[in-house]
Amino acid sequence: MNTADLGLPEEEGREALPQKGGGGRRVGVPSTALFTDQYELTMVRAALAAGTAERRSVFEVFTRRLPNGRRYGVVAGTGRVLDAVENFRFDGAVLDFLREREIVDEETLRWLAGYRFSGDIWGYPEGEVYFPGSPIMRVEGTFAECVLLETVILSILNHDSAIAAAASRMSAAAGDRPLIEMGARRTHELAAVAASRAAYVGGFATTSDLAAGFRYGIPTVGTSAHAFTLLHDSERDAFQAQVNTLGRGTTLLVDTYDVAEAVRTAVEVAGTGLGAVRIDSGDLLLVAHRVRQQLDELGARDTKIVVTSDLDEYAIASLAAAPVDAYGVGTQLVTGSGHPTSSMVYKLVARAESARPNAPLVPVAKRSTGGKTSVGGRKWAARRLDAYGVAEAEVVGTGPVPGELADRQLLVELVKGGEVVAREPLDAARERHAAAREGLPMSATQLSRGEPVLPTEYLHGASGS
Amino acid sequence: MNTADLGLPEEEGREALPQKGGGGRRVGVPSTALFTDQYELTMVRAALAAGTAERRSVFEVFTRRLPNGRRYGVVAGTGRVLDAVENFRFDGAVLDFLREREIVDEETLRWLAGYRFSGDIWGYPEGEVYFPGSPIMRVEGTFAECVLLETVILSILNHDSAIAAAASRMSAAAGDRPLIEMGARRTHELAAVAASRAAYVGGFATTSDLAAGFRYGIPTVGTSAHAFTLLHDSERDAFQAQVNTLGRGTTLLVDTYDVAEAVRTAVEVAGTGLGAVRIDSGDLLLVAHRVRQQLDELGARDTKIVVTSDLDEYAIASLAAAPVDAYGVGTQLVTGSGHPTSSMVYKLVARAESARPNAPLVPVAKRSTGGKTSVGGRKWAARRLDAYGVAEAEVVGTGPVPGELADRQLLVELVKGGEVVAREPLDAARERHAAAREGLPMSATQLSRGEPVLPTEYLHGASGS
Repeated sequence: MNTADLGLPEEEGREALPQKGGGGRRVGVPSTALFTDQYELTMVRAALAAGTAERRSVFEVFTRRLPNGRRYGVVAGTGRVLDAVENFRFDGAVLDFLREREIVDEETLRWLAGYRFSGDIWGYPEGEVYFPGSPIMRVEGTFAECVLLETVILSILNHDSAIAAAASRMSAAAGDRPLIEMGARRTHELAAVAASRAAYVGGFATTSDLAAGFRYGIPTVGTSAHAFTLLHDSERDAFQAQVNTLGRGTTLLVDTYDVAEAVRTAVEVAGTGLGAVRIDSGDLLLVAHRVRQQLDELGARDTKIVVTSDLDEYAIASLAAAPVDAYGVGTQLVTGSGHPTSSMVYKLVARAESARPNAPLVPVAKRSTGGKTSVGGRKWAARRLDAYGVAEAEVVGTGPVPGELADRQLLVELVKGGEVVAREPLDAARERHAAAREGLPMSATQLSRGEPVLPTEYLHGASGS
Repeated sequence: MNTADLGLPEEEGREALPQKGGGGRRVGVPSTALFTDQYELTMVRAALAAGTAERRSVFEVFTRRLPNGRRYGVVAGTGRVLDAVENFRFDGAVLDFLREREIVDEETLRWLAGYRFSGDIWGYPEGEVYFPGSPIMRVEGTFAECVLLETVILSILNHDSAIAAAASRMSAAAGDRPLIEMGARRTHELAAVAASRAAYVGGFATTSDLAAGFRYGIPTVGTSAHAFTLLHDSERDAFQAQVNTLGRGTTLLVDTYDVAEAVRTAVEVAGTGLGAVRIDSGDLLLVAHRVRQQLDELGARDTKIVVTSDLDEYAIASLAAAPVDAYGVGTQLVTGSGHPTSSMVYKLVARAESARPNAPLVPVAKRSTGGKTSVGGRKWAARRLDAYGVAEAEVVGTGPVPGELADRQLLVELVKGGEVVAREPLDAARERHAAAREGLPMSATQLSRGEPVLPTEYLHGASGS
C-alpha cells in the first residue's frame, strides 16, 4: 500500500489522514473551514460580543419531507462528514482573507485561529434509512463551535444522501444484476467521486470513476468508447486491437455502426469466449433480445450483455425480463434520479439558559407561519418493529426512551469530545443499507409514488410541529 | 494579496498556480488525472499497442438538445477546464494504483508518466450562449492525449453550464434587483464553489459561500440565521447583539416568531437607518407588501427587503411587482432549476488516416440507430445577425467559413500547443454573458417553455445527422 496522494492532495504542513477503511488510499484532506456560509461567521462574531457564544447548544439535521413520492431516504456521507469536521481549521491565508474582507473582527479571528470542534456528534449510521423528522445527525457543543459546521455538514449529507437514495431504488430494481456507476461526466468532478461512494453505499457494485477507486477502494471497470472504434480503419481493426490488449474476456461496444454486424465481428475476433458486449443506444429491450439470440446462435452462450443508455430505476425495472447481465447508469444516478438534493436542514433545537457550565438546556424552535416550523428539544429515535420483525414506525422523542424501544435506537456516537470514534470501512455502510432496506415493509421498494413507508411518531414534548 | 492556500491546497512538490484574474486568491490546484473514466486509459493502452494512439484526432463537445423547453444554453466552466488540463498529470501514487489494479500495462504507465497535453483547444468563450449542435469546445491532438480529457472536461462543462443557465434565467427575471447565491448547503461542498462561480457568470451579484469569495473574488454576504435569534433570551436581545456588532446597516431576519412584531422590534433596536430585513418563509408576495408598509409607517423608508425562501426564476418573476430589493436563491440555483446537468458529449469527429505526421484527416461519426448519431468533421461556428443586429441563426459548418460570417465566428483559441492562452478575469465572462444574451431575440428570456431561440443551421459536409 502506497502513501501519498492524488486528486486532492495534502495541504502543506498538514499530515494526510491515515487510510480510512474500505481499501482506499491515503488522500490528503484539505481544510474545510471555508465551506461555510458567511452568516455563520458573523453570528459567531455577534455572539462572542454578546457573551452568548459559549451557551451549550444542540443542533439537529433532519428533513421535513422526503422527495415527492419517495418511500424512504438513505443516509450517506457520514464518513465524509467526520473527515470534514476533523479538518475544519482556519489557517493563516483564510484568516487574512476574513480580515481583509472585514467579515469578522480581531477577537473573532483569534477565536477562529484556535478553532477545533470539541463537542459531540451522534447520528444515524451511514447506510441507515430515514424518514421525515428523523434526527439524522445531532451536533452538541457551544453555540459558536456548532453553528460553524452547518453548511459543510448539510452540503455533504444533502448531496450524498440524494445519490444514495437513487442508487438504492436502482439496486432494488436491478435485483441480483450488478450496477455500474458511470456518471462522472454528468456532474462536478468531485461531486462525482462522492457520488460513486454514495452509489456504492446504495448498492452499486462498481464505478468507472478512477478517483473513486483510488480514494475509496471501489472496484473500477471500463473498456472502450465509440471513439475507439472510430479511430480505427474498421470496426474489426478496433475489436482486434482491444482483444489483443485486454484479452477475449473484455467487453466490446457493438453499436457504433450496425449492431448485428458488430456482434458477428466481435465473436469472429474474440471467439465464443468473448466476455461481454455493450449496447449504448436504441430500444434496449428489443436490442438485448436480438443480441442474446444472435450470441447464442453464434455459440457465445456465456458472453454477457451490458446496457448503458440513459437508464434510471424505471428503465432498469422494465428490463427485468430482458436478457441483460449488467446495467451502467450515469446521469440519473448522479442527479439523484430527479431529486439531486435531500432538503435536510440543520436547526438549533435546544440551548442553555446561559453561558454558565451546566446551565440547563431549554428547547427552542422557530414559530412563525410558513411551513418551516420545527420540533424543539434534543431527540432520540428508534424504529419499532411489528410482531413479525418488520419495521412499522419511526419513533422520535424528546424525553426518556421507552423500555421496549431501548435496543431499537438509531443514533450512534460519531464524535466524542471532538474525537472521531466511529470510523468504519465503506462496505460496512453498504451492508447496513442492504439490511436496513430488507427490514422495511415490502412496499418500500415499489417504484411508484407513495407515502413514506413508515410513519413518524413523536413521543413526549414534541410540540410545535 | 496573500499567497498560500485554503480549500484545495497545493499538492506536495507542485507549485500553486499564479492567481487567475477576477480578484481570487492563490489556491493550489491538484492533479486532475484521475477524474477519468477507466475506459479512457484502457483505450490508450489498446491504441498504443495497435499503433493508432498517435493518430491526429479532433474531439468536439456539443449537446444534441437543450433541456426541455429552454431557449438557450450558457457556456460556463471554461476557466476551470483550462486549469484542469494544465494539471492533468500522473504522479507516482496514481501510477502505482493503476499498476496494482492492472488497469494498464507497463508501456502505458511509462507513457502516462510523461503525459502533458500538447495539443490545441478552441472553444466558445465562457459566458457565451449556445444551442443544440454548437461546437462548444474542440480538442485536437493525438488520439491518446485527447481521449484522456473526456471525463474531466465534460464534468466541468456539464455542471457549470447547467448552473449558469439557471442563473441566467433567474437574473433575467430579477431585472435590476441583485441576486444572492446561497445554495452551498444544497449540493456537494466543492460543486457549491463551482456553482457560485457559474452563478456569477450567469448574472448573480454575490454569494454566501466563503470559499467562492476566497477562490474567485466573488463578493460575499450574510448576517444571521434563525439559530441566532433562538440562541438569545428574546428576539430583541438577538437583534441588539447583531446591531451592536454588525452595525445598523445589517440585515435582520424577521420571521423567527411573528413578523410584524419582529419588524417593530428591529426598527426600535436599529432605528430607521436599519439596512434591511430578511423574510425566509411564508407567502413572500403578501408578506413583502405588509412589511414594506410597516417599515414605511415606522419611518424606515430606506430599509431594504431581502427574500430567500425556495425561490426559482418563476417565483422571482412573480415578485417583480412586489416591494422586494434583493433575492437569495439556494436549492434551485445549485440544482440547475430542474436541469442539474447539460447533456454535453465529447465525440471524435475526425482523425488522421494513419499515425504519420500530416496524414490527412477523415471525418468520422457514429452511425447506428437510436438517436445518438453525430455530425462528423472539424467544425466552425458563427452567429448570423439580422438587419437589426439581432442574432437570427447559429451556423455550424465543416468547410470554409463564408465571408459574411468571418467576423461573427464563435470559437476562440484557448490552448495552443499545450499552453493556455486565454486566461481572463471572471468578470469578463460575466460581462460577455450579459452582452450575448442581450444580442438574442427578445423571446430568449421568456420563462415559458419553448424551442431554442435560434435555429442551428449546418453548412457544407454536415452529413450523418
